[in-house]
Amino acid sequence: MFEFTVTARAGRARTGVFHTPHGDLLTPVFAPVGTQAAVKTLTPAQVRELGATLVLANTYHLYLRPGDDLVREMGGLHPFMQWPGPMLTDSGGFQVFSLADSRKIDDDGVTFKSHIDGSLHRFTPEKSIQIQENLGADIIMAFDECSDPNDRAYTAKAMERTHRWAERCLAAKTRPDQALFGIVQGGIVPDLRTASARFIASLPFPGIAIGGLSVGETKAEMYATLDVVTPLLPEDKPRYLMGVGTPEDLIEGVARGVDIFDCVLPTRLARHNAAFSPEGRLNLMNAAYARDKRPIDETCDCYTCRTFTRAYLRHLIVAKETLAGTLLSIHNLRALIRLMETIRLAIQDGTFEAKIPALLAQWRGNAKREPLAKPPR
Amino acid sequence: MFEFTVTARAGRARTGVFHTPHGDLLTPVFAPVGTQAAVKTLTPAQVRELGATLVLANTYHLYLRPGDDLVREMGGLHPFMQWPGPMLTDSGGFQVFSLADSRKIDDDGVTFKSHIDGSLHRFTPEKSIQIQENLGADIIMAFDECSDPNDRAYTAKAMERTHRWAERCLAAKTRPDQALFGIVQGGIVPDLRTASARFIASLPFPGIAIGGLSVGETKAEMYATLDVVTPLLPEDKPRYLMGVGTPEDLIEGVARGVDIFDCVLPTRLARHNAAFSPEGRLNLMNAAYARDKRPIDETCDCYTCRTFTRAYLRHLIVAKETLAGTLLSIHNLRALIRLMETIRLAIQDGTFEAKIPALLAQWRGNAKREPLAKPPR
Repeated sequence: MFEFTVTARAGRARTGVFHTPHGDLLTPVFAPVGTQAAVKTLTPAQVRELGATLVLANTYHLYLRPGDDLVREMGGLHPFMQWPGPMLTDSGGFQVFSLADSRKIDDDGVTFKSHIDGSLHRFTPEKSIQIQENLGADIIMAFDECSDPNDRAYTAKAMERTHRWAERCLAAKTRPDQALFGIVQGGIVPDLRTASARFIASLPFPGIAIGGLSVGETKAEMYATLDVVTPLLPEDKPRYLMGVGTPEDLIEGVARGVDIFDCVLPTRLARHNAAFSPEGRLNLMNAAYARDKRPIDETCDCYTCRTFTRAYLRHLIVAKETLAGTLLSIHNLRALIRLMETIRLAIQDGTFEAKIPALLAQWRGNAKREPLAKPPR
Repeated sequence: MFEFTVTARAGRARTGVFHTPHGDLLTPVFAPVGTQAAVKTLTPAQVRELGATLVLANTYHLYLRPGDDLVREMGGLHPFMQWPGPMLTDSGGFQVFSLADSRKIDDDGVTFKSHIDGSLHRFTPEKSIQIQENLGADIIMAFDECSDPNDRAYTAKAMERTHRWAERCLAAKTRPDQALFGIVQGGIVPDLRTASARFIASLPFPGIAIGGLSVGETKAEMYATLDVVTPLLPEDKPRYLMGVGTPEDLIEGVARGVDIFDCVLPTRLARHNAAFSPEGRLNLMNAAYARDKRPIDETCDCYTCRTFTRAYLRHLIVAKETLAGTLLSIHNLRALIRLMETIRLAIQDGTFEAKIPALLAQWRGNAKREPLAKPPR
């Protein structure tokens, strides 16, 4: 269980297979986010149909509602939300830290107020592991501290704390059917990232995540940081770039040796009437689409593009039908999952490096980064 | 085209086949409502999967948004919303009259203000037919006037107007691939209903609707009115009871010879967290379901009941995930469509009349009628 086999390489990019209790995961892979044990607006059947394999859920949200004890009583996240494939939970750290004014961090953990009712709670590395064991995902994450990349002193301190917490998470873990991934921190400081990559790689984690990116640094800084980190990570463990990202970020990330990505962007854009397309990001509310008989993307094989015109999608948006969000979510998720399928094939047939410029050109118009992550909800 | 063949009888109840350009319709049938060219929260694939055959859309809404000319330019409702089966549009009358303070009726038509932007519009019988020809449903409805059942003088006047308008609709109609249904009015006054049924039945409509029910009268008054009307209607034309209704109403309606029903109840209840069940209407927001591992209805074959626990559905509701509305809509629509399948089989095997008490007992807890129809939106 949890072996990772590299099946092909193209420069630093690679394809692989990660074995989990809920099936083999082909990498590189993009994971839709099901924050509250549901990929927003979609049934698991729809998520499956669009080709998703790995689905992420959020520890902070599920701990508060419905409660990890309830999820455990229901048999864990897989039967609860009826996702048959591999799942991943985050540690809850990122979202707790993003609560800004309503949390207090110390060396042992973090005390915070619920965004729902203001009630007081405390997460420690041990507590995060306990919650994630109750939730029962295949891949669980170490409790880490994500720092402001522009604050070097704080970044060094948060990195040290992340390292101590990583050891405590390993010690706290009890379930053999879950893979605990360590998280590399260190902001955008090469020395810190080097130290963190070496330290986390030295611990017995079956996979390694890169945290603290896509949180306000530039794209150039993100790519430069990946250039520092991935060469220091073991070849035989999957690498997970947390909370990333845009189509461009996925291409650049794979090229730098990343295997797993997740992001709320596809479903969040859908709720804001925006769709990925080779023409760039379309805002389908635009009156220009009122009588447009084309699908969002003529080359896309998703249910939405195989079935509906832009004119119909715009009508649903204007008429405030929530079906619009469902149909755009299907397309946006499929677009990224299809991009990853294209990339996997290109790595396997040796054409990936040659195709990078064309892939980037095709997706350039969709590259705009969303603003800095906001507090939950 | 548009022949109706009765295939079996049980008392006044009958099964039949109605031939339309988009396929044969097996009756009795319940039609989900797609007010704005979308069955709320569901893709056409989901609507198809739950066994729907006929789908209704609303002329008033589609005339205002996106506009019937736009729908025509897109090829009509079928390609626009991608519903492959038979469709029906109402005349727009009912919704315009329900605008109460913002409409003025005269013998020629009705002038009204849009609920969206207050702009002034006018519907006449000719205009309603023109719009419905642009929308392109298989079954279209005559422009009628629905009266307050408790106002006898107004009811007589509205019935007369409905009859003149029925003749004008027949004269205005041009498309041979649409079946125009006449509408019987007359409130709850037996003499008026008798006169209206005889008059509408005398005109060359391929199907006949019963309007002006489920608008504030009691259930006993509705059933008594059906007892007056259906025996006066030709046997070889389908009968459509508009805007009805609850499971109990469907059983009682079929027993009185009705073939077609439609109602927003299943999808509206879903948005209010309520589900049909043999235990009666469940409010799944209730804390009692927080750890309930049962499906909504153990005997139901819908995707929701085959897949999810009440606990999960309650979690989605509490967490304000719109997926809850999707999953409850699937169940509620499937419940009524399955009820109609059960009834069709029972009519065919000669057991329907014997089964009526058991069917009514099974569905009694779901019989509560929704309040009087409110203005659009």
